[in-house]
Amino acid sequence: MGTGTPISDVGEFGLVERIAAALAGQPAGGVEVGIGDDAAVVRLPGDGRAVVSTDMLVEGRHFRRDWSTGADVGARAAAQNLIDIAVMGARGTTLVVALGLPADLPVEWVTDLYAGMREEAGAQGAVIVGGDLVRADRVVISVTALGVLTGEAAVRRSGAQPGDVVAVAGRLGWAAAGLSILSRGFRTPRVLVDAHRRPQPPYAAAAAAAEAGATAMIDVSDGLVADLRHVAIASGVAVELDPSRAVVDEPVASAAAAFNADPLVWVLTGGEDHAVAATFPAGATLPEGFTVVGEVRDPAEVDVLDGPGITVGGRVPRSTGGHDHFAG
Amino acid sequence: MGTGTPISDVGEFGLVERIAAALAGQPAGGVEVGIGDDAAVVRLPGDGRAVVSTDMLVEGRHFRRDWSTGADVGARAAAQNLIDIAVMGARGTTLVVALGLPADLPVEWVTDLYAGMREEAGAQGAVIVGGDLVRADRVVISVTALGVLTGEAAVRRSGAQPGDVVAVAGRLGWAAAGLSILSRGFRTPRVLVDAHRRPQPPYAAAAAAAEAGATAMIDVSDGLVADLRHVAIASGVAVELDPSRAVVDEPVASAAAAFNADPLVWVLTGGEDHAVAATFPAGATLPEGFTVVGEVRDPAEVDVLDGPGITVGGRVPRSTGGHDHFAG
Repeated sequence: MGTGTPISDVGEFGLVERIAAALAGQPAGGVEVGIGDDAAVVRLPGDGRAVVSTDMLVEGRHFRRDWSTGADVGARAAAQNLIDIAVMGARGTTLVVALGLPADLPVEWVTDLYAGMREEAGAQGAVIVGGDLVRADRVVISVTALGVLTGEAAVRRSGAQPGDVVAVAGRLGWAAAGLSILSRGFRTPRVLVDAHRRPQPPYAAAAAAAEAGATAMIDVSDGLVADLRHVAIASGVAVELDPSRAVVDEPVASAAAAFNADPLVWVLTGGEDHAVAATFPAGATLPEGFTVVGEVRDPAEVDVLDGPGITVGGRVPRSTGGHDHFAG
Repeated sequence: MGTGTPISDVGEFGLVERIAAALAGQPAGGVEVGIGDDAAVVRLPGDGRAVVSTDMLVEGRHFRRDWSTGADVGARAAAQNLIDIAVMGARGTTLVVALGLPADLPVEWVTDLYAGMREEAGAQGAVIVGGDLVRADRVVISVTALGVLTGEAAVRRSGAQPGDVVAVAGRLGWAAAGLSILSRGFRTPRVLVDAHRRPQPPYAAAAAAAEAGATAMIDVSDGLVADLRHVAIASGVAVELDPSRAVVDEPVASAAAAFNADPLVWVLTGGEDHAVAATFPAGATLPEGFTVVGEVRDPAEVDVLDGPGITVGGRVPRSTGGHDHFAG
């Protein structure tokens, strides 16, 4: 089927770089924010701007039908797109859905999927419009969200400044703990399993952060360390994360104790809660729900770094823990 | 994995009906055209409107990597979305892409995919913005196109009126002939095989039709008979298709003769050329590229019909030849 370099050799980020290169030099007129942020911002002729995000969920990789209902999966597909829009300082208005479906899939699973999607979207004031249905061997769900900016400018990953504080809102480690529980064949504690099935992204906190002047914001989908590293690189700064300030919620701590696991691994590397990380100017009043977990510095002043990057407890993490979706 | 009615029992159109029911009663404020047309039209706060279309292509079902290059598949993914936008009387501005990719897929195939997508999109003045990359067992390509209306109102499927003429622009049967050739293990005639690999939708004709006051328009993706039936049902009219007026282009006629096949089957049921069918008021000057293939009548005046529907050569077709993507 053709020769060349397997994707697994270059990894996800290598692939993204090559795609960016393949798209370099496109007319920039209509695009305000392109590849490399949580969502794109496109200018529409006339006046408007639209914020656009897309996510694909593949059965067996992102969900299992014996672990999650159709409604759970629908709610999650909606949530992860809507929070991508929210962290840009925008409000999701419309979800467009394309589905790949096996012919023997129960119709009820599909209507349940839409019910879950509608519930999550409706709570955020967004509506679902038609899309495409195709046959596939496994369920594939591709959701594209459209949104509108609530302020003048989008909040990007690239705006963090030395001196800013780094803060987090939303759950950390809950969904990762829930997945570990399911993977071991358990179904409780229910609160963690449910957190895996249906994330509860902190939409209101994201909107409040944009309002409060967040300099950068990101949806924590690869894990806190990996995503703060994305902010550091995009902003050309050092992010110093103090893991002792990251809140380990009680259910996460208990589950970790029961499994003889380190809860900080879930908290620092789990992405499926879709928490929100943001940077704020020093002295800013943080919106409700945010906890300070670190600060932004000039990389030249951080001995252990050669350039923009992240430190965790003063050290360069061996790995950011972020998923490379194409590694082995 | 749950019980219920398999999708194959209700078919694609049964599934669409149930999805529409699951979404009934959503706030309609932001949606001008929802499920059931080639693309949706959504209102954006302030002023703007966006036209949105999405299509998913699954390896093995919509393309084979030994028959099409990455660039072919990319061009096709872009084309089928851009023509969906064009038949609404809109202009595509932005493509958003989500990809499911096997880890052993060559990186070059992916960059080639983007090159093809860029080429097709660029020719129509549209740009590609970032999206999502996930791992999958087979290549899955989900493209969402955004566009802007060029006139005041979208051209819908539902506007055909008794007395209108029915006309078609673009190739009919070429891609279907090309697929038959490839399926039989041949690679020539090249012009037909290429038509399967990269459709050439009549973008300019679609734009001209909207400008000329087309009352209804549709992208021929299920086949001419099936798609004109969609127009008939949505408009509540009878469409009388005269197959003797449908142009059988020379390469299609030759291939059919060589295979001892009926070229009209390809012409009337092949969808992958993404031709455009439109209805125009009687007496309207048809834009360049359109050929009249029938007329619109009041169903009450058509003896063989009980209600809105299509006749082909004066008869009700046994089957519309449209793909039910979930049948057997």
